[in-house]
Amino acid sequence: MEITKASIQAAHERIKPYIHKTPVLTNNSINEMTGIDFYFKCENFQKIGAFKIRGGMNACLKLNPEQLSKGVATHSSGNHAQAMAFAGKTLGTKAFIVMPKTSPQVKVNAVKGYGAEVIMCEPNQQAREETLNKIVAATGATFVHPYDNDDVIEGQATCVKELIEDVPDLDIVITPVGGGGLLSGTCLGAYYFKPGLQVYAGEPEGAADAVLSFKSGKVEKAPYINTIADGLMTTLSDRTLAIIKEHVTDIILVTEEEIKAALKLIYERMKIVVEPSCVVPFAAAFKNPKLFKGKKVGIILSGGNVDLTKFGEWFGA
Amino acid sequence: MEITKASIQAAHERIKPYIHKTPVLTNNSINEMTGIDFYFKCENFQKIGAFKIRGGMNACLKLNPEQLSKGVATHSSGNHAQAMAFAGKTLGTKAFIVMPKTSPQVKVNAVKGYGAEVIMCEPNQQAREETLNKIVAATGATFVHPYDNDDVIEGQATCVKELIEDVPDLDIVITPVGGGGLLSGTCLGAYYFKPGLQVYAGEPEGAADAVLSFKSGKVEKAPYINTIADGLMTTLSDRTLAIIKEHVTDIILVTEEEIKAALKLIYERMKIVVEPSCVVPFAAAFKNPKLFKGKKVGIILSGGNVDLTKFGEWFGA
Repeated sequence: MEITKASIQAAHERIKPYIHKTPVLTNNSINEMTGIDFYFKCENFQKIGAFKIRGGMNACLKLNPEQLSKGVATHSSGNHAQAMAFAGKTLGTKAFIVMPKTSPQVKVNAVKGYGAEVIMCEPNQQAREETLNKIVAATGATFVHPYDNDDVIEGQATCVKELIEDVPDLDIVITPVGGGGLLSGTCLGAYYFKPGLQVYAGEPEGAADAVLSFKSGKVEKAPYINTIADGLMTTLSDRTLAIIKEHVTDIILVTEEEIKAALKLIYERMKIVVEPSCVVPFAAAFKNPKLFKGKKVGIILSGGNVDLTKFGEWFGA
Repeated sequence: MEITKASIQAAHERIKPYIHKTPVLTNNSINEMTGIDFYFKCENFQKIGAFKIRGGMNACLKLNPEQLSKGVATHSSGNHAQAMAFAGKTLGTKAFIVMPKTSPQVKVNAVKGYGAEVIMCEPNQQAREETLNKIVAATGATFVHPYDNDDVIEGQATCVKELIEDVPDLDIVITPVGGGGLLSGTCLGAYYFKPGLQVYAGEPEGAADAVLSFKSGKVEKAPYINTIADGLMTTLSDRTLAIIKEHVTDIILVTEEEIKAALKLIYERMKIVVEPSCVVPFAAAFKNPKLFKGKKVGIILSGGNVDLTKFGEWFGA
């Protein structure tokens, strides 16, 4: 399939009954501190607490009745798991969610709370895929990949579409990048709904695959994985990299200290709960005030599903 | 002075240019869990991060130019200190803030950040008052008490006025109670702008003075002080008790465990940062679902100024 302006518009209409139009917040003290006009698109207030509902719901709503009757399946330790579980419950079909044993309990509970069937596996990519394949073979459920899927990318593109509707004179938008679903969707949304809108991404130094892939032009692995931004540990796919290469201006790396400082600032000044993954783009802008000075910069705050017992680690005790 | 419908209306117009009209949030999952229709008035998003700006700003704006030129003064370890510091900065006069040595550094920094002069004292009531009296004698600054002051109470009354404007068919409103400024202001606002609106308060068992005073009819001290709700450790005054006795339906006690559970629920489900003090009314409703079932219940979320290093203690590590 091809993702077009019309197909993103259609996806938006398709998912609108099931999602929130999330608010765009601004903060005077952060703007004064940086000289940047920030517009925070608060997907932490989204259904299931993250933007992932957009792509997951769009993919499920495009299934035909026979496909839908057999259920949906995915592997995810994070918000895509919740999105698929929510979609399954909402559309009255079974959702099979393969999760690594190491998943935070709060996320496992949330998925089960939506009535999904959780299948635990060893915490590695091979185990995830093998377990998923067995489920799909046994049930005939449709696999919806967290990001390597055009329907998912099309759904994620609706987020920047809403942001542009609320802030028509936006200069720049920055998203986090993990597997690249949100980033590639944002690229296409920006391209179709506000040509000229620059797209940047923020990535943790401790999961720096996208920046390498962006430079070399082929999918690379991160040199090492060590970050509190647990939603950004995944690797780009050929599909997401192709879109990112064409549309992204730059990918900016941030350190763990910069992520924690950004997290602290958002909690203290904005009084909202966000995930470490989702402050990475803000941290990227915050460390580059000259690059963004005087610009209207949209930040997609991608989610707010936190394990509260991690607060001590993030903020000190 | 007498606080009247007209005087509260005038106070609201007076402070409007300096405050935010804070949003009223709802949350489906919390409503489903309890069978109560909650309306959360989010004063955590207010200027200075708390409702206290309403009363502090109202009191300062009512000073004449000669009074104002000599500065304003108060003793407070909490949000009233920030409110007075902000008012001083905004109105171009000096604010003298007496704070106990034990004040959280984040609150001292915030007060200094507004350009106020902070005077440290021993952490007891006598030291606070003596230090304050010296400052007032030396400077001629006007003392604005955190709650035992009609202009402050009048300003706090504007919060429930806004809530009623947004949710005209509200049945009940619940506030926290410390010194009783917010509670007595809420009583008067409810009485004048929606007669019949029931007013409840929530109070920690570990600072249970108001519930005793409410029963005996005279100002009582708490049997002991031990609570994470650090904004509610103060004692009613004759002034606030008189209003509370006349208008409040009941004051409900909550335990520390109930406060922590309520705090966790608000962070996890609503994705907003609030102070322990401000979830006390929600905890009071949450433990009494039968009393409030099917009712439209307004909760004044009074503030969001937290010391992030306390998260480990509140949420576990």
